[in-house]
Amino acid sequence: MSPAPDQDLRELLCEQLRAFYTRGWVSGTGGGICAVNPGGHMLLAPTGVHKERVQPPDFFTIDVRDGSVIEAAADEKLKPSECGAIFRASIRERQAGSVMHSHGLSTVLFGDLATDADHVAVKDLEMLKGVRGLANRDVHLVPVITNTPRESELLDQVEAVLKDERFAAAFAIIVRDHGAYIWGADVWETKRHAEVYHFLFEATVARARR
Amino acid sequence: MSPAPDQDLRELLCEQLRAFYTRGWVSGTGGGICAVNPGGHMLLAPTGVHKERVQPPDFFTIDVRDGSVIEAAADEKLKPSECGAIFRASIRERQAGSVMHSHGLSTVLFGDLATDADHVAVKDLEMLKGVRGLANRDVHLVPVITNTPRESELLDQVEAVLKDERFAAAFAIIVRDHGAYIWGADVWETKRHAEVYHFLFEATVARARR
Amino acid sequence: MSPAPDQDLRELLCEQLRAFYTRGWVSGTGGGICAVNPGGHMLLAPTGVHKERVQPPDFFTIDVRDGSVIEAAADEKLKPSECGAIFRASIRERQAGSVMHSHGLSTVLFGDLATDADHVAVKDLEMLKGVRGLANRDVHLVPVITNTPRESELLDQVEAVLKDERFAAAFAIIVRDHGAYIWGADVWETKRHAEVYHFLFEATVARARR
Amino acid sequence: MSPAPDQDLRELLCEQLRAFYTRGWVSGTGGGICAVNPGGHMLLAPTGVHKERVQPPDFFTIDVRDGSVIEAAADEKLKPSECGAIFRASIRERQAGSVMHSHGLSTVLFGDLATDADHVAVKDLEMLKGVRGLANRDVHLVPVITNTPRESELLDQVEAVLKDERFAAAFAIIVRDHGAYIWGADVWETKRHAEVYHFLFEATVARARR
Repeated sequence: MSPAPDQDLRELLCEQLRAFYTRGWVSGTGGGICAVNPGGHMLLAPTGVHKERVQPPDFFTIDVRDGSVIEAAADEKLKPSECGAIFRASIRERQAGSVMHSHGLSTVLFGDLATDADHVAVKDLEMLKGVRGLANRDVHLVPVITNTPRESELLDQVEAVLKDERFAAAFAIIVRDHGAYIWGADVWETKRHAEVYHFLFEATVARARR
Repeated sequence: MSPAPDQDLRELLCEQLRAFYTRGWVSGTGGGICAVNPGGHMLLAPTGVHKERVQPPDFFTIDVRDGSVIEAAADEKLKPSECGAIFRASIRERQAGSVMHSHGLSTVLFGDLATDADHVAVKDLEMLKGVRGLANRDVHLVPVITNTPRESELLDQVEAVLKDERFAAAFAIIVRDHGAYIWGADVWETKRHAEVYHFLFEATVARARR
Repeated sequence: MSPAPDQDLRELLCEQLRAFYTRGWVSGTGGGICAVNPGGHMLLAPTGVHKERVQPPDFFTIDVRDGSVIEAAADEKLKPSECGAIFRASIRERQAGSVMHSHGLSTVLFGDLATDADHVAVKDLEMLKGVRGLANRDVHLVPVITNTPRESELLDQVEAVLKDERFAAAFAIIVRDHGAYIWGADVWETKRHAEVYHFLFEATVARARR
Repeated sequence: MSPAPDQDLRELLCEQLRAFYTRGWVSGTGGGICAVNPGGHMLLAPTGVHKERVQPPDFFTIDVRDGSVIEAAADEKLKPSECGAIFRASIRERQAGSVMHSHGLSTVLFGDLATDADHVAVKDLEMLKGVRGLANRDVHLVPVITNTPRESELLDQVEAVLKDERFAAAFAIIVRDHGAYIWGADVWETKRHAEVYHFLFEATVARARR
């Protein structure tokens, strides 16, 4: 079997999953990642597996428009991540080239700061510059939505947030009690945004505890 | 000497011990692990050794029914872990295929939250889904028992908890001031449950400090 | 192409960036490093790249006196770090042989302790001895300056601090809400000072929270 | 040049220094280690160097009785650690076969809990069993002495503590604002004691903050 034409991208996604795992963002088989391949389709990691062990043939090739499976993972026992519909919404509405889903503890504690509000404001941090388009004096609103029994049921809230003018500058959505979706134009920007947002979450949580 | 027929399983257990060590769950020679091998016997790590240095021939093969040693570790100086009787109780009562024992700091701080109660309730966390059978809106009761001078003396409390209807959904028992026993159907589920429960412990402790 | 005459130094700088990354000091493409090469010029890391992935040919060779580029990075798409002018000020005013720029969370939380003051005092720590010239009974004033929209605009404040007698013993400057500049006579002293100052920041923050 | 007859021990000490470094116990060139070699002499790490980079030929061979240098490090620029006299006291008074010196943050924060007292009591932790001779229901007194301008000036206090009946069960001494000395019968017991005591320090500090 010859390697997939998007083999490099598959390997890069596996590398990111291993790096995310060492940071505690995808432990316990949680979290996930996707990227748009050169053919314009979404490579999607499988659900319910130890993410740091995902291999290149384990990805599903998904039609971004309707979510149908163009090519399944090589292993028939694998199923595509439940993040699929939400990942596709970010690709469609924000031209994301890659999206990651974090289960890091700081995403949960940051979401707690919202209490009943629909966002948490981040400010007074140079690291804001690490988000494309932001200046360090911006007050950056990170949207916070409410968790649902199934991940697919988050879609309505995600789509509302993506269309909300107040959150036009955001490359991340927090799901209360759950985690974060973070995206960028490609895998490398998504990696940068993931590192930047987790720093913003940790700094904001630490400052709130003083 | 030809490799043991359960050589792969022994190597997998060693790999898990090394991973647990880097997370601080089995430091100071504490903690442990076991798994049921294809022959239906329990492979048990030795006591009093640096767990990240355990090698495949260091395991004891134990009869699950009566705890007798079927095959000792290759090194005559090794003794089987004191966790043996408790591990066997989880195998017997809950059909566990593998059990790990953590000495992670978060297990102690989580147990402190029980004060005089016999459990701590975990709720409002998506990560609950990482425990087999749970939904993210469940209120999950994690049993907490009281430490004893010798680990073997915990057995009565462990057996009572395993038969307690309130804890039927739990794959973990906290021992106050001590650590946690966490199990699953096989090594991989035990790894997932270990990661999930430690996340639940850390999140619950962090939220209690706000 | 033969290797650069300062190839060893370039490799050492890359090694430090990878080590800094694992400690969370240069995540999200933030932070940076420079060193004076045997020819008396400054090797400067590029801006806007994942710092743990910087390679030897990625450095710019900069004239310390006027900041002009003597030799650009091999990759035409790279641009020199915005830290350049500040790094050169430390080289000029303090005879630094190397300077690092940290975006570690502890630098931000330490800076918060200054509130409206222009410094934070560090005391009662043996680790003070790790800063060249200090004794463990010294009260060490770490200067804290205010962040600006662009990094280059920090230069006036940096130069004022470097000339301030109160801060003559300091090998670090904190930028509020942003990070730290830390230097030494060469890369190895800068590494030591980076480790020592981050320890001093963490210890002082932890003690302030008691 | 043939390898030193205690080459294995030298390599083991280097391995421990690298492991201690990753845990933050010997950062910024601080901390140290020694062991008694088969000839009954003390192998002592050098002072003022990056401890994770120490190599086998960098150790000094020291006479335990009078501290004289039997064989210097291969590199003439190296000097023996200032810990020497204190390490020798533990070897002499407690038959230590190895001693480590930690600059970990938890040692400082644990020492803070003593305020003006000469010890901190550790209790209600299973991990106490990891200290040779202790039971988990013991109340374990860890001696705390006061820092001095030079490490060698700590010797009188160290010797007084080593002779104090109240601290007969201790394998560790805390130096306020500074760090800890931790020892054992050999390198492996010292490693275990180092892991156990740092856990005891972290747990006691975390519980004091509730």
